[in-house]
Amino acid sequence: MLLQRLREEVLEANLELVKRGLVLYTFGNASGVDRDQGLVVIKPSGVDYDKLKPEHMVVTDLEGNIVDGELRPSSDLDTHTLLYREFTGIGAVVHTHSEYATSFAQAGLPIPAYGTTHADYFYGPVPVTEPLKDEAIQGRYVHETGAAIVERFRQPGREVDPLAIPACLVAGHAPFVWGKDAHDAAHNAVVLEAVARMAFRTTLLRANCEGVSQALLDRHYFRKHGASATYGQRTK
Amino acid sequence: MLLQRLREEVLEANLELVKRGLVLYTFGNASGVDRDQGLVVIKPSGVDYDKLKPEHMVVTDLEGNIVDGELRPSSDLDTHTLLYREFTGIGAVVHTHSEYATSFAQAGLPIPAYGTTHADYFYGPVPVTEPLKDEAIQGRYVHETGAAIVERFRQPGREVDPLAIPACLVAGHAPFVWGKDAHDAAHNAVVLEAVARMAFRTTLLRANCEGVSQALLDRHYFRKHGASATYGQRTK
Amino acid sequence: MLLQRLREEVLEANLELVKRGLVLYTFGNASGVDRDQGLVVIKPSGVDYDKLKPEHMVVTDLEGNIVDGELRPSSDLDTHTLLYREFTGIGAVVHTHSEYATSFAQAGLPIPAYGTTHADYFYGPVPVTEPLKDEAIQGRYVHETGAAIVERFRQPGREVDPLAIPACLVAGHAPFVWGKDAHDAAHNAVVLEAVARMAFRTTLLRANCEGVSQALLDRHYFRKHGASATYGQRTK
Amino acid sequence: MLLQRLREEVLEANLELVKRGLVLYTFGNASGVDRDQGLVVIKPSGVDYDKLKPEHMVVTDLEGNIVDGELRPSSDLDTHTLLYREFTGIGAVVHTHSEYATSFAQAGLPIPAYGTTHADYFYGPVPVTEPLKDEAIQGRYVHETGAAIVERFRQPGREVDPLAIPACLVAGHAPFVWGKDAHDAAHNAVVLEAVARMAFRTTLLRANCEGVSQALLDRHYFRKHGASATYGQRTK
Repeated sequence: MLLQRLREEVLEANLELVKRGLVLYTFGNASGVDRDQGLVVIKPSGVDYDKLKPEHMVVTDLEGNIVDGELRPSSDLDTHTLLYREFTGIGAVVHTHSEYATSFAQAGLPIPAYGTTHADYFYGPVPVTEPLKDEAIQGRYVHETGAAIVERFRQPGREVDPLAIPACLVAGHAPFVWGKDAHDAAHNAVVLEAVARMAFRTTLLRANCEGVSQALLDRHYFRKHGASATYGQRTK
Repeated sequence: MLLQRLREEVLEANLELVKRGLVLYTFGNASGVDRDQGLVVIKPSGVDYDKLKPEHMVVTDLEGNIVDGELRPSSDLDTHTLLYREFTGIGAVVHTHSEYATSFAQAGLPIPAYGTTHADYFYGPVPVTEPLKDEAIQGRYVHETGAAIVERFRQPGREVDPLAIPACLVAGHAPFVWGKDAHDAAHNAVVLEAVARMAFRTTLLRANCEGVSQALLDRHYFRKHGASATYGQRTK
Repeated sequence: MLLQRLREEVLEANLELVKRGLVLYTFGNASGVDRDQGLVVIKPSGVDYDKLKPEHMVVTDLEGNIVDGELRPSSDLDTHTLLYREFTGIGAVVHTHSEYATSFAQAGLPIPAYGTTHADYFYGPVPVTEPLKDEAIQGRYVHETGAAIVERFRQPGREVDPLAIPACLVAGHAPFVWGKDAHDAAHNAVVLEAVARMAFRTTLLRANCEGVSQALLDRHYFRKHGASATYGQRTK
Repeated sequence: MLLQRLREEVLEANLELVKRGLVLYTFGNASGVDRDQGLVVIKPSGVDYDKLKPEHMVVTDLEGNIVDGELRPSSDLDTHTLLYREFTGIGAVVHTHSEYATSFAQAGLPIPAYGTTHADYFYGPVPVTEPLKDEAIQGRYVHETGAAIVERFRQPGREVDPLAIPACLVAGHAPFVWGKDAHDAAHNAVVLEAVARMAFRTTLLRANCEGVSQALLDRHYFRKHGASATYGQRTK
C-alpha cells in the first residue's frame, strides 16, 4: 500500500484529535505530505472516527488530484493542498472546530500571546484572516479559505512566519494548524485549544491585558525551538 | 409489537442524548412519528434512562391519545404532537434542557449564526419564542408551548422554515429540536448545544459580533443539505 | 447496628455527591434524621469517600451529642442539627462546595429563578444569607451558620418556606441543601448546581434578565410537587 | 537507590497532578526535598507521565548540581531549588499550568480570598509576582522566576508567610505551589485550581466583590492548621 507509514501517522493524528476532545462527530481532519513524492495523505470525508483504518486514507497529489483511495477525501482538501504548496516547510495540516479557538475565530479576533504556555508554541499572537468576500465564498471556496490564510501570513508590514506560528484562525470558521509532521500538527492543535481557553478567561478577567513581553516570548519560544533548545531530553 | 423499528430508533435517540451529556437525570425526551400510520412513539415520563427498553416506549396518535403502552408518556407529549401536526415534513422531535442552549432560552435570546459550524446545520439564527402569557401557562400549557414555537416560525415577515432551522428555544424553558428521523433529531440537538457553547463565548469576546455573511450561510448550509450536497460519501 | 437503613441511605447520598462531581477531596457531607427516635446519622469528618462504609457513619441526638460511632462527626454537624430542629419537615441535609452554587454564595447573590429547570425544584430564587458578623464567626460558628440560614428564611416580609425552596447559600461559604430524605436532598443538590451553572451563563448573556413569571413558577413547581403532580409514573 | 521513599512520593505527586486534570502533556513538575541530606528529588524534563518510574527521578543538591540520575532534570529546577533555599519550612514544590490559576497569572491578578474554600487552604489572597524585567528574562531566567516569588513574599509592608499561603502566581506564566511534603503540595495545587475556578466566576458575577472578612479567614484557616485544628480525625 502506497505511503503506509504516512497513512498510519495521519490516522493517529486524527485519533489524537478525538481523544483530546477537539472533535465532535466528524468535524475535523488531518493530513500529511510526502515532500519527496509530492503526495498528500488525508482523512476521507464524513466517516466515523472509530471505523477509520490506514487503508481508508485518501492519497492525492499537491493539486488535489486523487492518486489512490476508494473514498472521497475530506471536503477541506483544497485548503490543505494550498497550504502545502505555499508553506513549503510544513509536513502536516490539521483542521478542527475545537470550541475555544473557534470562538475566537467567530469573534474575528486573534489569540493574544498572554503567557508562557502560548510562547512555548506560538511566537506571537495566533492571527485571524480577513472575512472572505462573497465572490470568494461563491467561487472556489475551499481553495479561497487557504488563500485567506496565506494572504494573512504575507500581509505587507505584518508578515508572519508559518514555522514560528503554526496556526491561523479563519474568520467565522475555525482554526487550521500545522507542524513538521502529523504528530506535531495534532499536538499543536491540542495546545492551541488550551491556549485559547486560557486567553478567553484572561480576557474576561482583564479586558485590556497587554500580554507577555517580547523578551519573554523570545525566551520561551527559543527554549523549545531552534539550535539552542534546552527543553526535554537531548537526542543523542 | 407495534412499530418495533421506530421504538428502537426512539430509544437510541434518547440514549444518545444521555451519552453526549445533554440530559441530567430524566430531563429530556425524544419521539418519532410514523407518518403512514399517523402514530407517535415517545419516551415514558420520569423513567431512568438505564432501565429504558423499546417496549417501554408509549405509542399515541397525532392527538396524543394512547394507542399502546403501559406507562405514562413524557409530560411534554402535547408539544411533540403539535409539532408533528404543524410541521408535516419532520420525522422526530427531541427536547432537552442542555445547558448552554437553555441559558440562551432563559435569557430570551436567539442563538446567532456566528460561524460555519452553525451554518452547516442551521440556516440562520436559532429563534426564541415569545414568553408565554399567563392564560397560556394556566391553560393547556404543554400544548401552548408547541403553539408558541409554531407561532414564532410563522410570524409575518419573520417566517422561518422548520426544515432549514430544525430547532427553537422556548423562552424561559429550553430547546426543542427536530429532524427527518430520530437519529437526525438527536444529532441536531447535540450540535445545537455545541453551537450554543461557542456562541456564548463568542458573545463574551465580542458583544456586538455580526455573525456570518449570507453568502457563507448559503455555502455551508447547502454543502450538507439539498440536491447539490458535497459532504460525506455519496450514497450509491 | 443502630439505624442500619438510614446509615446506608446517608452513605449513598454522600457517594452520589461524589459521582456527580459536586465534591473535591472531602469537601462535602450529607446527613439524615430519624424523627421518631430523634437521632441524626452523619458522615464522619475528613475521611476519604472511597473508604466510607455504613458503620463509619456517626449517630448523634438533635443537639449533636454523639450516641454511636468511633469517629468524629463532620465538622458541620451543628449546622445540620440546627436545621433539623428548626425546619421540622425536612428529613436530610447536604452540604457541598459545588462550584457554581458556591460562586453565587461567594458573590453574596441569590440564584434567580431564570427558567423551568429551576422552577421544577425551587419555588423562587434560592436565597443567600447575610454575611456572618465577627462575633458569630468567633463564637459558635457552625451553629451560627445554621442560624443565619434560619434567619434568612424567617426574615419578616421576605419569608421563605423551606419545603418549597429546599436550599440556601451561605454568604462567602457555599450551599446547604435539604429534602424529604437523603436521596432527595442529594438530588436537589445536584440540580441546584446545574441550575447555578445555567443562571451564571444567563446572567452573563443578559445582565438584567427578569426571570420566569409567577405563573410559570406555579405551573412547573406544582407539576412535580403536591397533590396534583402529573410528572413521572403514578404510584399505585 | 538514593532517597527511595522520596522518589516514590514525588512520582505520586506528579501523577496526582495528571489524575486531577492539572497537566496537559508534560506541562508540570513536582519535587521534594530531604532537609537532612540537603538533596532535592525532581521529575525529569519532558518525559511522558505514563512512563515515569521512581528511578527516573533526578537527585540534585540545593544548588541544582546533579547528584544522581541519567536524565535531565525539569527545566524549572532552578526555581524549585531557590524556593527550598529561601523558604526553609517547605518540603515540596509543584509547578503546573493549571488553566484557571494560569489565567489569573496571565492577567497579572492575585486570586482574591472570596470564600471559605479558599480560607481553608490560603490565609489571604494568593499573590502574583511583578512581571520579570527584560534583564532577568535574558539572564538566569529560571532562577529569576524563583527570585520574583521570594521578592513578592518579602515585599516591605506587604509580607506574606509562605507557610500560611503556600502558592504564588508568576505573572504571565503560571502558579508555583508548595507544602510540607509532596502529597501536601500536590493537594494544595489541586485546591488552588478549584479556588481559581470559583474566583473567576465570582468576579464575573460581581466585579467588585469584597471577599471574606478577616474573622472568617482566621476561623477557617486555623480550623485546618495549627495547634487548635478541629478538622478530620485526631491523630493518636
